[in-house]
Amino acid sequence: MITRNPQLAALKAGYLFPEIAKRRREFAASHPEDPAKPETRIISLGVGNTTEPILPFTTAGLVEGAGKLGTAEGYSGYQDEGLPELRKKISEVFYNNDFSIDEIFISDGAKCDIGRLQLLFGGGAKVAVQDPSYPVYVDGSVLIGAAKGWVNTGYEGITYLPCTQENNFFPDLSLLPENSLLYFCSPNNPTGAVSTREQLTKLVDAARCKGCLIVFDAAYSEYIRDPSLPKTIFAIPGAKECAIEVNSFSKPAGFTGVRLGWTVVPKELRYAGGESINADWARIAGTIFNGASNIAQAGGLAALSGEGQKEIHQLCDFYLGNAALIRSTLQKLGISCIGGDNSPYIWACFPGRDSWEVFAEILEKCRVVTTPGAGFGPAGQSFIRFSSFGHRADVEEACDRLFHKMK
Amino acid sequence: MITRNPQLAALKAGYLFPEIAKRRREFAASHPEDPAKPETRIISLGVGNTTEPILPFTTAGLVEGAGKLGTAEGYSGYQDEGLPELRKKISEVFYNNDFSIDEIFISDGAKCDIGRLQLLFGGGAKVAVQDPSYPVYVDGSVLIGAAKGWVNTGYEGITYLPCTQENNFFPDLSLLPENSLLYFCSPNNPTGAVSTREQLTKLVDAARCKGCLIVFDAAYSEYIRDPSLPKTIFAIPGAKECAIEVNSFSKPAGFTGVRLGWTVVPKELRYAGGESINADWARIAGTIFNGASNIAQAGGLAALSGEGQKEIHQLCDFYLGNAALIRSTLQKLGISCIGGDNSPYIWACFPGRDSWEVFAEILEKCRVVTTPGAGFGPAGQSFIRFSSFGHRADVEEACDRLFHKMK
Repeated sequence: MITRNPQLAALKAGYLFPEIAKRRREFAASHPEDPAKPETRIISLGVGNTTEPILPFTTAGLVEGAGKLGTAEGYSGYQDEGLPELRKKISEVFYNNDFSIDEIFISDGAKCDIGRLQLLFGGGAKVAVQDPSYPVYVDGSVLIGAAKGWVNTGYEGITYLPCTQENNFFPDLSLLPENSLLYFCSPNNPTGAVSTREQLTKLVDAARCKGCLIVFDAAYSEYIRDPSLPKTIFAIPGAKECAIEVNSFSKPAGFTGVRLGWTVVPKELRYAGGESINADWARIAGTIFNGASNIAQAGGLAALSGEGQKEIHQLCDFYLGNAALIRSTLQKLGISCIGGDNSPYIWACFPGRDSWEVFAEILEKCRVVTTPGAGFGPAGQSFIRFSSFGHRADVEEACDRLFHKMK
Repeated sequence: MITRNPQLAALKAGYLFPEIAKRRREFAASHPEDPAKPETRIISLGVGNTTEPILPFTTAGLVEGAGKLGTAEGYSGYQDEGLPELRKKISEVFYNNDFSIDEIFISDGAKCDIGRLQLLFGGGAKVAVQDPSYPVYVDGSVLIGAAKGWVNTGYEGITYLPCTQENNFFPDLSLLPENSLLYFCSPNNPTGAVSTREQLTKLVDAARCKGCLIVFDAAYSEYIRDPSLPKTIFAIPGAKECAIEVNSFSKPAGFTGVRLGWTVVPKELRYAGGESINADWARIAGTIFNGASNIAQAGGLAALSGEGQKEIHQLCDFYLGNAALIRSTLQKLGISCIGGDNSPYIWACFPGRDSWEVFAEILEKCRVVTTPGAGFGPAGQSFIRFSSFGHRADVEEACDRLFHKMK
């Protein structure tokens, strides 16, 4: 019989979010909701899943994109690397026209492209991550063989760079191994910390000096409101020689279900042997991917028009409004937290406590689902991530319960 | 600096279809089209890309799916494993309700899922393919490390099972290695051959006897018109113990650009160590994939309704009409071929000739783009694949040129 990929056995338990969904189901089964008692309803501030409708101009773009497929003039088939006009528009809107269209690859989302990106480097790559970090960087590295089994609090072969209150959630770059692949996310998921220009300059300098490649996850860049904070790694001189950037329409435009993102792979990027990383990425994308949905791409074009960009701003403002409510509730409770001002996540500290235990306590007392920090890596222990993706009334109700029951 | 995945260096030249596109561009540059002379226009019978609009009922499903996202009631976010109602409908329409919804995984297309499926088995898998075969089986195996460099006419470590005129395009299963992963496609791309019930029974028996797992690619099943030919491997008793099936809405419903497919992973499937392959697939999909577009899924539901199924039949009939034209042209020219009756591809033999040379001759003489058989594997040498995906007038014009210039 056929043998299992040994890397699957190395993967620890379930992926974080299905695990949370399972615990929520178990809790709901033993604590059934009573429609007559609104306080028994479970509210989620857990998963980073958008909840608000896509705004009118962008929706019209999606509808028009779908309708066109029923006409002889408007029909289109495979769009492997993405619509040229969308790639051009992304370069214009996000990168000041600094990239040619063959450096911008349209994807079905940041997570999916991060899964594929690992093929550029294979099982021999030395991987470093911010700790805590979004699970796909680590789990994807295990799947491809770049990390071995779980030992104590982390995977053997992965360098965890702690991001803690002590270092203001920016890692000590002296710990970054030479010639490694570093996954870096800002605005950060889960901490909500946003790296400053000075910090990102240090990051790029360290990567260039140590021969590292940064995979920069900018999926939350549109939540940045402080104009001094860079929205892309390519705002930093030298980044084109050491960084790939992944981004997505999911969180800014509410496209979590629509599936649309992009990856920037500058032509300057080279491996140690001098081969072009951009050319390899085109080969990988052409081989195991068939492009994002043409309907999603039509919606993406609408979202990047003048009208659409206003909608993106408005939608992010809405979730930032939720984040402000959560932050102020936690502050009133005297719980120390960061994030939520230029990011949709709030990272709250419960000193000395196990984060799955705090997760269970909040679920029991408030019937509010959160995400335990330990699920994002060892340095996430004692933290809880609150997500601001939710309807306003739900967030208000959750905050009210937190305030009264967690006092 | 960071090291290249050595498997990328093992991959031969470009992926087949971008390579053909490149040769077409080069030819077009040296033989510019003259709008005043229609005979100078290049016509493609090359790539298997659908060309006809999506039919009205299915289009309305897509439009409605897009429009719903703009409403509070209709909005949805991540749908990782796919809409339950779509999974249920697929089980009903294609598998006689023989699978539960957690055995049916919605994907963004067969090729993308085949790329991810390789992670179940990793670089240690022994891979076997029909020769010729669709490139992603082989190229994906190289990327994951299950095949080494190119030696003479194939990759070291891949077992090529020749499908030739001599064996009526069904492989000699005594060549199938024990405990291997076999990619099998019927109706076949590129040969157009469709395996009979008797042949598929032999295949399932051989797989079970030898401890092999079949990845059965049924992407062209809706082109089968002969009711005696099975449309799924699961029509064969015992297949649930030895087969995964991938399928797609691309070719039946014209969804090449929309991106929607599915993969069936029966719960009965086990690795040598007894672990569940279904559970691993759920873990992989949850880790590096975020689900197909919810708009595409709304379209998929429409396509599987009674009205939508009529449209699928009508659309496949249209391309089969093209196939009949191509077949009869080749037959009039005395060129031996198979396929095109229960499949959109026609596989034409040019004995003793190099297929890239025939490709160039047809392009030169007729300005018709085809696909050289050698691009699909060593046994494809001396063959040309004609695709029936095209507008009727183009196919008629291409056939006319072939008839007059290839005599």
